Amino acid sequence: MKIVIGVDIGGTKTKIGLVDQHGKCHAKTFFRTREYPELESFLDKIKSTSDELIESLEGEVSVLGCGIGAPNASSKNGTIENASNLVWKESVPILEKLKLRMPMPMRIMNDASAAALGEMLFGGANKMKDFIVITLGTGFGAGIVANGQLIDGYDGFAGELGHVDMTIGDGRLTGLGVKGGLEAYVSATGLKRTIMYMLSKYMTESRFRNIAYNDLHGEDITKAAEEGDEIALMAFDYTARIMALALANFTAFTQPEAFILMGGLTNSGKWILEPLEGYFNEYLLDVYKGKVKILKSGMHGKTAAICGAAALIWETQEH
Amino acid sequence: MKIVIGVDIGGTKTKIGLVDQHGKCHAKTFFRTREYPELESFLDKIKSTSDELIESLEGEVSVLGCGIGAPNASSKNGTIENASNLVWKESVPILEKLKLRMPMPMRIMNDASAAALGEMLFGGANKMKDFIVITLGTGFGAGIVANGQLIDGYDGFAGELGHVDMTIGDGRLTGLGVKGGLEAYVSATGLKRTIMYMLSKYMTESRFRNIAYNDLHGEDITKAAEEGDEIALMAFDYTARIMALALANFTAFTQPEAFILMGGLTNSGKWILEPLEGYFNEYLLDVYKGKVKILKSGMHGKTAAICGAAALIWETQEH
Repeated sequence: MKIVIGVDIGGTKTKIGLVDQHGKCHAKTFFRTREYPELESFLDKIKSTSDELIESLEGEVSVLGCGIGAPNASSKNGTIENASNLVWKESVPILEKLKLRMPMPMRIMNDASAAALGEMLFGGANKMKDFIVITLGTGFGAGIVANGQLIDGYDGFAGELGHVDMTIGDGRLTGLGVKGGLEAYVSATGLKRTIMYMLSKYMTESRFRNIAYNDLHGEDITKAAEEGDEIALMAFDYTARIMALALANFTAFTQPEAFILMGGLTNSGKWILEPLEGYFNEYLLDVYKGKVKILKSGMHGKTAAICGAAALIWETQEH
Repeated sequence: MKIVIGVDIGGTKTKIGLVDQHGKCHAKTFFRTREYPELESFLDKIKSTSDELIESLEGEVSVLGCGIGAPNASSKNGTIENASNLVWKESVPILEKLKLRMPMPMRIMNDASAAALGEMLFGGANKMKDFIVITLGTGFGAGIVANGQLIDGYDGFAGELGHVDMTIGDGRLTGLGVKGGLEAYVSATGLKRTIMYMLSKYMTESRFRNIAYNDLHGEDITKAAEEGDEIALMAFDYTARIMALALANFTAFTQPEAFILMGGLTNSGKWILEPLEGYFNEYLLDVYKGKVKILKSGMHGKTAAICGAAALIWETQEH
């Protein structure tokens, strides 16, 4: 069996899996990124984890290469640079260093761009030429496809839409210090911050008056919404409204046929997606109305990021 | 001599010229768009004006086709739809109707996208693969090139960046009713509105306290700035700051190598371009700093729009 190693480096977890040409993940595991703050030991861990996964497969296995998705990765430079949700802050020449340990074809890309490639190869976007994948995890990422091609940018850093300023230079600071940056509102972290904001703004009773910021998790907010907690409902509505305005703005850029959403926040289902749809159609310019779909990813949630990373190598193969 | 008819339909003027394969304009003229509020007579006027120009050329002339740039034009549908600065408000099937009068190869495109194509074929961008042309006229337009290709969008309406909302749903209304839309701030019209805003905000003495909004022209504001009028200086600074924030946001989208500026407002030279450069570098995300140029168009100001329109046809020719 021919497989590609897919590595998704996230702020919380680094996921590794073995992906076949149909986007099926045959073995996968993860480790906690922050447990390997030293780059060298982090790369050793990727190498040893990959080896273990390959050994776990039965039959003959041929490894075609390794694809990596990571926040703030530059496909052109093979680096991760100043990623706000990762422990290494400077420019990390990750591809060069990992190739020393694993000599094989290797590519790295912004995680959301990799996800967009995964959607084209394995997901629901395989007939679309113009779409944008939005990843809603710890941060906010975007992978842009236009004219059937992934948009890389001059230097490999296209699609950093989490740092778009929504407020003419005022508002919340993102992890990169961008005032009013979208990611500070629309992401798992943004939703937690909005809970704090709602607690400051209203006197409404809520379970969140008894939970510290650091003890707060996305799933708790979904559960609270389901139980009718008004602060949770207002926080989701506020998040959906800002996200809708951002997607309406992004539409004016490349006019995608669809936005494809993935990541933890999309699991909050109707609490975020229903108001999002409503506000989106309200904010959309007339010329775009009725032409832009909001879809959930066609890839399996638990392996979408791994398959997206593997798509970087599968894309280069004839199959 | 082989030539292409280039037509630039603007809110104020419709310009027509005859352009050779090197982007040289051999004859040109214009008429006032608003004098032809009926679509049929407007198209008759384009036909008769083109004929007169062709007759004015000496020697044998072979017309290869006609390229049209217009606000809110859809290249895919051959239409102009709901253009806020034009007299026809509905969807106008302009290509189909003009072809009846002038049977020849014909293409239409958003004026700023046509300008981007002109920059690639005839201007300063002929080696760049990732750049954005910004047209600063009555409105604000953008033509986006990424991976060496013009970004059209699903339906031909990519690049409508003048209607991006900069203020989370608050702020000035654009002609299309978008609250906080960029065009309401950064355009010749936006600059006039900002003069009014500065007159409302400050009590500073200014020549503009004696001029009515409808009597105000862009050139007056430049002249006032040159003479040290503080309201004019503040208005330019305010415009430059909002524009810089917008360009910094746009950078996060496709990461262009350069923004190429054209249109009336760029004639205000240092009053807008110098503060723009300063604010832009301040707002730009670290990962982009020092990598994104702001350039003035390499095409001749008076014919840039005509040559851009003609580029739609020249692009399809082998030469």
